[in-house]
Amino acid sequence: MKQYLKIDEWSIIEESFDPHTQEISESIFSIGNGYMGGRANFEEQYSGQSLQGSYMAGVYYPDKTRVGWWKNGYPEYFAKVLNSTNWIGINIDIDGTPLDLAACTVTQFRRVLNMKEGTLFRSFTAELEGGKQVQVESIRIVSMARHEIGAIRYAVTPLNFAGTLTVTPYLDGDIKNKDSNYDEKFWNEVEKKSGTEGGYLTLKTKKLDFHVTSAFAFDIVVNGEKVTAEAEALEQEKYVGSKVALSVQQGDQVVIYKYAANVTSRNYGLGQLVEAAHSALNGAREAGFVTLLNEQAAAWGDKWKESDIIIEGDVSAQQAIRFNIFQLNQTYTGEDDRLNIGPKGFTGEKYGGSTYWDTEAYCVPFYLSTADSSISRNLLIYRYKHLEKAKENARKLGFKKGALYPMVTMNGEECHNEWEITFEEIHRNGAIAHAIYNYVNYTGDKAYLGQYGLEVLVEISRFWEERVHYVPRKDQYVMLGVTGPNEYENNVNNNWYTNRIASWTMEYTLEALKYLQENEAARYAELADKLELQDSETSKWNEIISKMYYPSDEELGIFLQQDGFLDKEIIPVKEVAPENLPLNQKWSWDRILRSCYIKQADVLQGLYFLGDRYDLDTKKRNFDFYEPITVHESSLSPCIHAILACELGYKEKAYEMYLRTSRLDLDNYNNDTEDGCHTTSMAGTWMSVVHGFGGLRVQADRLILNPSNPGHWTSYSFKIMFRGSRLKVNVTDAQVTVTNETDVPAALTIHGKEYTVNGLGSVTAEGSSVTA
Amino acid sequence: MKQYLKIDEWSIIEESFDPHTQEISESIFSIGNGYMGGRANFEEQYSGQSLQGSYMAGVYYPDKTRVGWWKNGYPEYFAKVLNSTNWIGINIDIDGTPLDLAACTVTQFRRVLNMKEGTLFRSFTAELEGGKQVQVESIRIVSMARHEIGAIRYAVTPLNFAGTLTVTPYLDGDIKNKDSNYDEKFWNEVEKKSGTEGGYLTLKTKKLDFHVTSAFAFDIVVNGEKVTAEAEALEQEKYVGSKVALSVQQGDQVVIYKYAANVTSRNYGLGQLVEAAHSALNGAREAGFVTLLNEQAAAWGDKWKESDIIIEGDVSAQQAIRFNIFQLNQTYTGEDDRLNIGPKGFTGEKYGGSTYWDTEAYCVPFYLSTADSSISRNLLIYRYKHLEKAKENARKLGFKKGALYPMVTMNGEECHNEWEITFEEIHRNGAIAHAIYNYVNYTGDKAYLGQYGLEVLVEISRFWEERVHYVPRKDQYVMLGVTGPNEYENNVNNNWYTNRIASWTMEYTLEALKYLQENEAARYAELADKLELQDSETSKWNEIISKMYYPSDEELGIFLQQDGFLDKEIIPVKEVAPENLPLNQKWSWDRILRSCYIKQADVLQGLYFLGDRYDLDTKKRNFDFYEPITVHESSLSPCIHAILACELGYKEKAYEMYLRTSRLDLDNYNNDTEDGCHTTSMAGTWMSVVHGFGGLRVQADRLILNPSNPGHWTSYSFKIMFRGSRLKVNVTDAQVTVTNETDVPAALTIHGKEYTVNGLGSVTAEGSSVTA
Repeated sequence: MKQYLKIDEWSIIEESFDPHTQEISESIFSIGNGYMGGRANFEEQYSGQSLQGSYMAGVYYPDKTRVGWWKNGYPEYFAKVLNSTNWIGINIDIDGTPLDLAACTVTQFRRVLNMKEGTLFRSFTAELEGGKQVQVESIRIVSMARHEIGAIRYAVTPLNFAGTLTVTPYLDGDIKNKDSNYDEKFWNEVEKKSGTEGGYLTLKTKKLDFHVTSAFAFDIVVNGEKVTAEAEALEQEKYVGSKVALSVQQGDQVVIYKYAANVTSRNYGLGQLVEAAHSALNGAREAGFVTLLNEQAAAWGDKWKESDIIIEGDVSAQQAIRFNIFQLNQTYTGEDDRLNIGPKGFTGEKYGGSTYWDTEAYCVPFYLSTADSSISRNLLIYRYKHLEKAKENARKLGFKKGALYPMVTMNGEECHNEWEITFEEIHRNGAIAHAIYNYVNYTGDKAYLGQYGLEVLVEISRFWEERVHYVPRKDQYVMLGVTGPNEYENNVNNNWYTNRIASWTMEYTLEALKYLQENEAARYAELADKLELQDSETSKWNEIISKMYYPSDEELGIFLQQDGFLDKEIIPVKEVAPENLPLNQKWSWDRILRSCYIKQADVLQGLYFLGDRYDLDTKKRNFDFYEPITVHESSLSPCIHAILACELGYKEKAYEMYLRTSRLDLDNYNNDTEDGCHTTSMAGTWMSVVHGFGGLRVQADRLILNPSNPGHWTSYSFKIMFRGSRLKVNVTDAQVTVTNETDVPAALTIHGKEYTVNGLGSVTAEGSSVTA
Repeated sequence: MKQYLKIDEWSIIEESFDPHTQEISESIFSIGNGYMGGRANFEEQYSGQSLQGSYMAGVYYPDKTRVGWWKNGYPEYFAKVLNSTNWIGINIDIDGTPLDLAACTVTQFRRVLNMKEGTLFRSFTAELEGGKQVQVESIRIVSMARHEIGAIRYAVTPLNFAGTLTVTPYLDGDIKNKDSNYDEKFWNEVEKKSGTEGGYLTLKTKKLDFHVTSAFAFDIVVNGEKVTAEAEALEQEKYVGSKVALSVQQGDQVVIYKYAANVTSRNYGLGQLVEAAHSALNGAREAGFVTLLNEQAAAWGDKWKESDIIIEGDVSAQQAIRFNIFQLNQTYTGEDDRLNIGPKGFTGEKYGGSTYWDTEAYCVPFYLSTADSSISRNLLIYRYKHLEKAKENARKLGFKKGALYPMVTMNGEECHNEWEITFEEIHRNGAIAHAIYNYVNYTGDKAYLGQYGLEVLVEISRFWEERVHYVPRKDQYVMLGVTGPNEYENNVNNNWYTNRIASWTMEYTLEALKYLQENEAARYAELADKLELQDSETSKWNEIISKMYYPSDEELGIFLQQDGFLDKEIIPVKEVAPENLPLNQKWSWDRILRSCYIKQADVLQGLYFLGDRYDLDTKKRNFDFYEPITVHESSLSPCIHAILACELGYKEKAYEMYLRTSRLDLDNYNNDTEDGCHTTSMAGTWMSVVHGFGGLRVQADRLILNPSNPGHWTSYSFKIMFRGSRLKVNVTDAQVTVTNETDVPAALTIHGKEYTVNGLGSVTAEGSSVTA
């Protein structure tokens, strides 16, 4: 863990150039707009260690699965996030020597991710071999206002020489994925054209036929005057560029404005791609760079209005929470219901896939509170659209009915291939059901059940019905051979969380059926018919609910993570010698498995999801037992623990967990930020603040807040959207102020007392010193 | 399953050519001599589906591991059985058209594996495109008398034409392994020379520097007269050959005698290889083919004298048992203690490695009874020599002391990479300890303990000591996270068999220590010092033995395969719809894991190994519970069940199991014989007859026989060597006759009555109609 970034409220700042942290910075300074995005690679060529990455949302590649030993049921392919055409490239050559920071002496360097306005800035002074010095300043955006557009202002000044500066803006599609299973490249060229003012390039994937057309144009301005130098059109395989040689004097400022448009066959017919790219490109070029910057600042201003969190008295925490919110907002905007939130967003290719249960468990709550409800609704509809594939997946694994959603997917098909995960980590189905509950509970949009939700719920309940079985000796239903959220246990019997979420799914499905039957009788009848719903099924679900087996220990008063858990040696993490941590890098897998150590919340995940069903004492006993043996080696772990710790009044633990989740990437806690950021867990960070310190819950159509202060902050405030209103909640030790930024009144409960905040009004309640 | 081979007492016979069964036949008709061997590929070129395979024992390749998802502790490489120089090749060309059975009409075809004399015979009549017909007859041996020598007599007769017959005997080292992980070839050329009478070729492996020199010479005899035609020397990359063009008349018989020698750097210095190869080659050529054939018949005669089993009244069973014994004898001769018994012998490359727990559990008993005791002793010493590597392996997995032998190995290092096997199927350690007991018990060679055995026992006991842990609530020791012999369960807690064999190992180690202390005090002191043996260790072992937890069910009176086994749905295999079988081809892995179905003996393996500790009722209750839910999808399963069924008097079950094990490859039961034969399980077949029907046990230095008749045989007889005597046991319903073929008297118990068989004498006891 190396902290090399400067603390600032609104920006991420790097003040010197270090090749060893370049890949980490490439991840952290990534920019995107939900439609496309990429790592903070340099515009000019760079021969040092770098992970080139430019991604178009929803454009993926089914790479042939690689396994050691094949098991029946494994998927044929693993969907890879596709590294696509590099559109940022602007090579600079000075009197025949390329500008390449790996081959220069860098005397000044500054990189700034301006999160408030959504820009990536970089400046540096470099001395080339031979002594020529240049000063460079670049600003790059991936436009939030025009999704297909990226733009760069790249300024070069010769500091101590006159000579020839050759500038080559280009598009390069001859790239590959680092994680390619068989070292293949995934793209073929379709067409290209280069000219004196830009060019375009169309590539298609070797499988699935995704087409991507990138087009670029550029303007060169020297000392404020636009120049029309003769450009040489360059073409190579999967490459187009325009080379311009300029005679420059010492002190001249050469500014290259590069505009790029990227369009895909996901949105256009194959015959329209080139035209669509040029239409977007021309619009952007005509608007000009300054207009694009202004649009960008305005678009990000709107985002922050909905989702900002302000922390007073702790700049590090302030920076961290904004970084998390910024990454989430630039990864997913919710406008395209075919998209989802990949674990690394647009910051890296690792883990492939785009959709994990992270979406339902961590991201849905974030978008529910910080964006229009249509956005979380789209995340739910994404799964609805994959229902047929989930049913196929269940058939493939031998189930006669029901649906099993995939662990990792791009298009609804499973693409992960570890049996203990792919086949056994089936609790993911529960999270998908729970997200429906969560959405309906938060938004009050019960119509969603009849429109989409019920079908998903019924098919998931059917899966659980078939997956459990009755044990006469116990007179109970059990579920054998699963992997729970704690992936440091594999193939266990009766994982409490999985049994619980399965039973809960059936309960909620019955509740949803009842609601429809009573309130939307026609739709109920239609769905019952479509689903061929049998009375025998619902009565079976009732039986399973009443006879589900939940492992527990009476003496300790806890739920058991799984059968036999107390046969383990229980030794708290704090007694484990530090050289053994992180376990996943130090211990062989069997040792991890038989140990008591927990990767991420498991029983506690259940107590969080179903928090209104368990009393504080139960939560406390389980937290006190499980947290001390939890190593939090999943990025998704600390946030759940932070939330529960807040609820239990464990302030120090809550703050410790918050720090771990919020600066995970900025401080490179897990020593893997170079692969990309932990995008989905960033929603967990937001949850730590709002559900944790803020104590946000929604019960019986009512917003509940129980704000507490982690003890290190003067005050903090967050925004939440709730049923048409947008509220700003400000918390100090003395008082909680809720300000309504809309004219929709909101009823809420703060520290157990009921309030109504009128449109544009505010209320004040007791502060965070009141313990929940 | 297709039965296309003719039933015969001493031979395997194929009477027509079918390209679809060619790879199966290549496996079944394989020949070898313990030092080298290969599949029954054709001498002449063959463009049809074929798995080329020629193997030198102990020459392997560390192929880079391939995994889907890496786990800490996985080995870097997987040791592959190396396909090496094809020395059998003799290409035939008729007036410019190659003789290739894939491109001919084959009007007559016969292939015979003569097991009595160790020869592979083939004859065929083929019509080439264009109508030219040839008759071919070949005999091939891999010499048992001269291990480095292979020889072929290949006779061609033009049936309906005169023309030019071009003959090209060659050596081809440009071959690859089908199972190469990254499609690499594993050999580099070192040197070669081709001439008019043969040539040689030295290759070395790309890693580990194994060198193999192959040399060949040939003689051509036309109509009984040796010809000295002008040969063209051929050289290509990793290839040498000699091309001879002969003018032939219709009816001429052209006989090619090809002699080949293969020597390796395992036995010679690098500078001596070419000379060594030529020395062996010249000796063989001078001796001539007929002499080589005679030597072969004599050598195999000796083998059969020691190990033959005769079954009267059931030719199919007779053929099968001899096939099993033949394969075992040609795979391992016990002369080189660096070698072991690969799961496919010289019949294929699948599974890699050479050593599995199969050796100790199945092969040692075979060699103990059918060969000089030095041979099983060598198998034990092989593990002794790997003790340091097994200790390293335990360290790698985080153990402070003790040894964990690898699951799959060539040189003592683990090379398998599935966590549930590599890290968790640790019962293999118990089988290695048990083989020491078995050897000492059978041979009476207690000196072995002081020489080699004790060190292995102590280090294995130390491993178990660290692998179990004490559970205060239970006041017992448990062992979590293992995979037992039944690999259809992974990562279970308290596998009864593993707990039992662990505890047994400690018991036997303590017994061995006591024996040495009392009988070889000086050696004991020396070893205690070398091993740094502590009193605290032995007392800890005693404590673990007395407090080991064994899962069991009182109501059923059975041991439980593992914790929670009775939570499974118990449905007998016979109620499983046939289209679901074999499960491993039809069900996804999770479904297999949570089912009750058992791949191979697990609890029952323990009741077999430790048979003298459990009464018949206990065996019966466990057999009655477990066998009906056992699918026998491991080739190692039926034999153990056959033996126990015999002991329990379940004649029909015993015979069913015997058939399954004995004709597994001949009848291609598992539909995978094309990959090679199930060599190690063949020892299990022998065990079914001798330990099963024959009821052989050794207790308190005494040979025990309890012969029964499976009910389908008139009589059967088998040979056993026991403490210097060789006995032939003949069993009929009426009587059991034991004939001593040596002059060493033997004391034995038959059906509970004691006998002594004098040197060269015999005794007669009650027959198999007496139920044990």
